[in-house]
Amino acid sequence: MERPRHQGMTKNTFMRWRLPLVCLVWEVAMIILFGVFVRFSPEADAHWEEEKRKMNLTSDIENDFYFRYPSFQDVHVMIFVGFGFLMMFLKRYGFGAVGFNFLLAAFGIQWALLMQGWFHSFKSGKILVGVENLINADFCVGSVCIAFGAILGKTSPIQLLVMTLFQVTLFAVNEYILLNLLHVKDAGGSMTIHTFGAYFGLTVTRILYRPNLEQSKDKQGSVYHSDLFAMIGTLYLWMYWPSFNSAISEHGDAQHRAAINTYCSLAACVLTTMAFSSMLQKKGKLDMVHIQNATLAGGVAVGTSAEMMLTPYGSLIVGFICGIVSTVGYVYLTPFLESRLHIQDTCGIHNLHAMPGLIGGIVGAITAAAATEDVYGKEGFIKAFDFTGTYKTRTPSIQGGFQAAGIVVSVLMAFAGGALVGAILKLPVWGDPAAENCFEDDVYWEVPEDEESDVYHMHHPDKPASP
Amino acid sequence: MERPRHQGMTKNTFMRWRLPLVCLVWEVAMIILFGVFVRFSPEADAHWEEEKRKMNLTSDIENDFYFRYPSFQDVHVMIFVGFGFLMMFLKRYGFGAVGFNFLLAAFGIQWALLMQGWFHSFKSGKILVGVENLINADFCVGSVCIAFGAILGKTSPIQLLVMTLFQVTLFAVNEYILLNLLHVKDAGGSMTIHTFGAYFGLTVTRILYRPNLEQSKDKQGSVYHSDLFAMIGTLYLWMYWPSFNSAISEHGDAQHRAAINTYCSLAACVLTTMAFSSMLQKKGKLDMVHIQNATLAGGVAVGTSAEMMLTPYGSLIVGFICGIVSTVGYVYLTPFLESRLHIQDTCGIHNLHAMPGLIGGIVGAITAAAATEDVYGKEGFIKAFDFTGTYKTRTPSIQGGFQAAGIVVSVLMAFAGGALVGAILKLPVWGDPAAENCFEDDVYWEVPEDEESDVYHMHHPDKPASP
Amino acid sequence: MERPRHQGMTKNTFMRWRLPLVCLVWEVAMIILFGVFVRFSPEADAHWEEEKRKMNLTSDIENDFYFRYPSFQDVHVMIFVGFGFLMMFLKRYGFGAVGFNFLLAAFGIQWALLMQGWFHSFKSGKILVGVENLINADFCVGSVCIAFGAILGKTSPIQLLVMTLFQVTLFAVNEYILLNLLHVKDAGGSMTIHTFGAYFGLTVTRILYRPNLEQSKDKQGSVYHSDLFAMIGTLYLWMYWPSFNSAISEHGDAQHRAAINTYCSLAACVLTTMAFSSMLQKKGKLDMVHIQNATLAGGVAVGTSAEMMLTPYGSLIVGFICGIVSTVGYVYLTPFLESRLHIQDTCGIHNLHAMPGLIGGIVGAITAAAATEDVYGKEGFIKAFDFTGTYKTRTPSIQGGFQAAGIVVSVLMAFAGGALVGAILKLPVWGDPAAENCFEDDVYWEVPEDEESDVYHMHHPDKPASP
Repeated sequence: MERPRHQGMTKNTFMRWRLPLVCLVWEVAMIILFGVFVRFSPEADAHWEEEKRKMNLTSDIENDFYFRYPSFQDVHVMIFVGFGFLMMFLKRYGFGAVGFNFLLAAFGIQWALLMQGWFHSFKSGKILVGVENLINADFCVGSVCIAFGAILGKTSPIQLLVMTLFQVTLFAVNEYILLNLLHVKDAGGSMTIHTFGAYFGLTVTRILYRPNLEQSKDKQGSVYHSDLFAMIGTLYLWMYWPSFNSAISEHGDAQHRAAINTYCSLAACVLTTMAFSSMLQKKGKLDMVHIQNATLAGGVAVGTSAEMMLTPYGSLIVGFICGIVSTVGYVYLTPFLESRLHIQDTCGIHNLHAMPGLIGGIVGAITAAAATEDVYGKEGFIKAFDFTGTYKTRTPSIQGGFQAAGIVVSVLMAFAGGALVGAILKLPVWGDPAAENCFEDDVYWEVPEDEESDVYHMHHPDKPASP
Repeated sequence: MERPRHQGMTKNTFMRWRLPLVCLVWEVAMIILFGVFVRFSPEADAHWEEEKRKMNLTSDIENDFYFRYPSFQDVHVMIFVGFGFLMMFLKRYGFGAVGFNFLLAAFGIQWALLMQGWFHSFKSGKILVGVENLINADFCVGSVCIAFGAILGKTSPIQLLVMTLFQVTLFAVNEYILLNLLHVKDAGGSMTIHTFGAYFGLTVTRILYRPNLEQSKDKQGSVYHSDLFAMIGTLYLWMYWPSFNSAISEHGDAQHRAAINTYCSLAACVLTTMAFSSMLQKKGKLDMVHIQNATLAGGVAVGTSAEMMLTPYGSLIVGFICGIVSTVGYVYLTPFLESRLHIQDTCGIHNLHAMPGLIGGIVGAITAAAATEDVYGKEGFIKAFDFTGTYKTRTPSIQGGFQAAGIVVSVLMAFAGGALVGAILKLPVWGDPAAENCFEDDVYWEVPEDEESDVYHMHHPDKPASP
Repeated sequence: MERPRHQGMTKNTFMRWRLPLVCLVWEVAMIILFGVFVRFSPEADAHWEEEKRKMNLTSDIENDFYFRYPSFQDVHVMIFVGFGFLMMFLKRYGFGAVGFNFLLAAFGIQWALLMQGWFHSFKSGKILVGVENLINADFCVGSVCIAFGAILGKTSPIQLLVMTLFQVTLFAVNEYILLNLLHVKDAGGSMTIHTFGAYFGLTVTRILYRPNLEQSKDKQGSVYHSDLFAMIGTLYLWMYWPSFNSAISEHGDAQHRAAINTYCSLAACVLTTMAFSSMLQKKGKLDMVHIQNATLAGGVAVGTSAEMMLTPYGSLIVGFICGIVSTVGYVYLTPFLESRLHIQDTCGIHNLHAMPGLIGGIVGAITAAAATEDVYGKEGFIKAFDFTGTYKTRTPSIQGGFQAAGIVVSVLMAFAGGALVGAILKLPVWGDPAAENCFEDDVYWEVPEDEESDVYHMHHPDKPASP
């Protein structure tokens, strides 16, 4: 049986039977549940020709596939390459960052198709799946990837799978409360994805607090190349964020508008991030941690309002503020959270997702409350907020109130859910690494041989190489 | 004249006149053949306005460009970044992996436009080219990239160009037999691309067997960073595979369905790959070779059936099985093939493309044979299998038989073609490297002066390089 | 205050107050100008439902968003990942390459939305912004990224921002002269983007000539991994170039045709680049510099003509020639320009953008002059060259003349603008690095500390770390 090399606090990180068991049993469960519940939506079903006639469509191009598939692919890249590579900044945790992200996301999208399907696409006993469901599943998993950022390097793959199972479930419940019960708008997920995902992850990492984490301090930094790999993640998240925020908006102007607003917010965010990164460092040098993360805060913060008439300058203002908030967070808040509140947040998700997510929820509430028929047009107004049926009489200011309520619900759900899941993950059966082996691929991965010695030397410069 | 540094078995790898000659003469040939044969399809021609009236289309959005261009770009990324980076795992063959892949694919798509054009888009003496042809050319080249994986690191760029010339030709013939003569469905190319490409490559590498390859054993492995580069390739292949399998399906539901099925199969595949990767290693650690490759087997294996009513749970089952088969293949079959059958398969294409390709062909045959009007709808049934004209009376079970025949034809064509091409490549005129220089960029590339001394010098400019 | 470590020629590169000031003040200016001027185009505005009726559109799919958004995203990737990573080839300038490119592009797109908006989308006092504007802004910034290539590693981030401010302005003026006054076609920007951007950058670098640049010669090269990172940039530029050249072409056949022509030109270009790279090196080995750059020349050179009836074989010929011209340029012209004309062109933009841009302008002029109603069809002819209104009577040969004039105007504007901006950047207030600190991230970036020692140790395991 494998034991960590350092014996300080021996932990059993042997995965050979536990990990395969979890993977295989859960995948079999997915197959059974898909077999019972999941079918194609009418637009993906071979009966589409009949459907087309029923819906009075004249061309195949009006299949939802052509409205959303390019955005779906962009979102897909954000989840797997964006998050996977962004988390690759650690010098010795590249395999874990990209590999575990891959694992949890691949499981998560399946489970999300089911959970979200039961809540939103359930018709006569079947979940009908189309391209919009695929996007929503990716969104849901995005919130898990965010939470993963807080505990990166400190957990076993089994813990990540367990967290994914629970978080996806709670995400779907929270999303249902917000979108269906509160009738809140949140196309880009400032509340449902970012606020929820971040506070969930922060609560989990708080509960999993490791007092001796400084034992692996030497591995918590980056090296030159790992920072460059991380920039791949950053850029793909940054470039495709307009697709993220517009992916499930209404066809036509709403998708178009959401993309433009997000584009503007992100652009402004880069400038203020660079400004504050330089300003807050004594020597005035730019810090890659800020560039890799805070430049993205603008995308998070227009997640709710991007499809609304936020306007390009409104988006610039939001991006402007969030670049500052996020960078300042990295410099002052992260150390404070760690030393005082015992929140060890590996990737700084508090700065990139939690605070900008909250801002995003607030901006969304204000933008909704400020909506007028004049700005939106009579039809546009009703369409934008879906003020039909039961919600026919809802006014913008009431909508704003509900939007605000959505923030509160998301935060509370995240705290409660995170506490529950944190407690579960604390059980000593999941094979998490000892404090001195955190942020180290070698625990769960076959690492190419000759690397070893060079890292050995890097960290023990005073010892000769060949003993 | 350049000679390899080790003199054990001197080979002339000097490319200066041979490679330019081949490149220039072949490119001139392409220009002449394109001049004689290739013109724009009506949808890309400036006469489109007239065409639109003729086809009774009311909007430019119904130009095939808008149905297929986003998928085309995804496929394009898979060929050049996907394959190019996936093969970058070797520690000293990054330039060759991405550079030679670039070269052979750039030549291959031109030659494929001609070969496939003569068979499929030839009208009144001209090949009419549109976006679908570009996708098909990329597909064809995909099969060459697969074969390249088997001989990676052991061949000269000229050999690769010669192989591309022949393989593209044979691919087009095989594709014609399958799609036109047997009237087989194979939108994602389980048979035409993967099975054919893989067995072709395996036959070639068998014939080029190098008994002394262990002389370069030290370069056959990966290093930490090369594994991370390879993950870029893996993830782009994985993420965009739904585009690959749906790119040339019928407009509407078929494209939509193919994307969903592929998405599901790939997700399941990740879980079983991780499970078996851990299970088959004594210490229970995950192996990057499996993660980089076997996670993709699910995409290969629904290549034929993705556009059919395979259903999401059917896709999960296929992905489940293929993750296992492929991972087990890497652990047990690859060493066996090398030691017993003398098949030196650098990238393990037997596990990623050959076996999953066969499974894909079989799944396609079964899914076709099991098709009913009930499941597909009357119109959908005819549309899905194109049971019109000569094929009006074909039944699903007969179709299943023809699908099975398509597998056999592909394998036989691959063996015969691979044997022929292998024999040609064995001629001692192509400048392949000596056994001890395999997997080494230095043979064909200007490699930056070695990391070692230059980093040393960069930071210690005052010290001499060789102590 | 930070001072460079070597004291040979002390320069004040302290950014702490200057960079933040520029970033914040300029971003505030953007917000104010956006607030005054920028609104959504009708297709992105919530009044779209009314607009749809006015334009007699029956489906949301005819919103320009669906015609152009996938191409926009590809272009976006080219600007941020394409250029950012292509310039990462230097061994110690990866942060600067990708980070400064990120900064200037994020600022540039905002300023370009305004400048281009005033010239092209200004209606009743407002700039109406839609997806096409986003693409055009990326295009405009593309020309700045090109110029950045010439001065890469030798400038401070403030200088880059100042250059961006001026270059975007001049770009918009030049573009207005070409497209509106001369009524020139240039969809892929051979003239407006490449010729203008390259000669602008070359003029700037000439004026900023550093006689002592050989002091940082050891850092001007690449290392193995930096070359692989650069290939990410190359491939994304290469793969998405068909989207670049077709992104703002007319809906339908023109977009379709532009993509096909560009695809063909780029494919041919790879072959001749490889041929000449091998041929021009004594040992016949391929040079990554050529593969990274010259393979892209074919995309530049069909920038003007791609949407015309250039035909696939015409595209192959253009790509064929440009691969040769560009590679020969790297081998012979770049050293000559540096030694004789004192043009220090870090990335060789003269070979990748200037010469192919000129060729592209000429090919465009010829293709336009050779246009006939027979080839284009009556309607297609008028549509392709927009021979309506004032230009109703313009003939192809006259159009060809105007196209040629466009080249001349672009070059002259580039020289004049580059001289002006170069003079401004020469002022000793912008914090540029000393000659011996060029091509070194350490000047403006927090660089992870321990690289140094660990690389040292990796390769010299037998030596102690601290000498």
